[in-house]
Amino acid sequence: MILEVAILDVKPGEEIAFERDFVIASKYISSIDGYISHSLSRCEEKTNRYILLAHWKDLKSHTENFRKSNQYLEWRRLLHHYYDPFPTVEHYSKVYENKIRA
Amino acid sequence: MILEVAILDVKPGEEIAFERDFVIASKYISSIDGYISHSLSRCEEKTNRYILLAHWKDLKSHTENFRKSNQYLEWRRLLHHYYDPFPTVEHYSKVYENKIRA
Repeated sequence: MILEVAILDVKPGEEIAFERDFVIASKYISSIDGYISHSLSRCEEKTNRYILLAHWKDLKSHTENFRKSNQYLEWRRLLHHYYDPFPTVEHYSKVYENKIRA
Repeated sequence: MILEVAILDVKPGEEIAFERDFVIASKYISSIDGYISHSLSRCEEKTNRYILLAHWKDLKSHTENFRKSNQYLEWRRLLHHYYDPFPTVEHYSKVYENKIRA
């Protein structure tokens, strides 16, 4: 499993519209073969900053299955105009995890 | 719930020692009141980069309960010397989440 990480700096004043369009765009990413989950979280210290965390079955699910899809064109059309600067996307593999016992 | 995010750039060549000491240090963070979970993942594009993601019950659990504890002194002693530059830590609140159906 691969974790996609993108820190998203949204143009100030456009946060509400971005959050709305992110929900709409989510149907495109979640339809891709190899998609597992994704979340959007908002920064407490810098309120126009967000983090996108997406889990994929493997790297290719993101870089090939999604980025070369028609669904990506819709995702990009809905979301990319909100970002300034344009974000860097990185991929991570888990090396350690711990949770409290339920 | 609050997500703590830190991008950790480890001095090149010290990755194996860092991963070993991170596991040892994990017992300190996980003993704190308000701790929920944490993970360490390694970057595919920049192999001396990691991301720490920690879930806390609330912001104070991290900034007060952990950072003002004796456990934090041990965490810092074990891990901080690996970082260059010293990382920025941010806190995020979830605004959206989706998963594939099992």
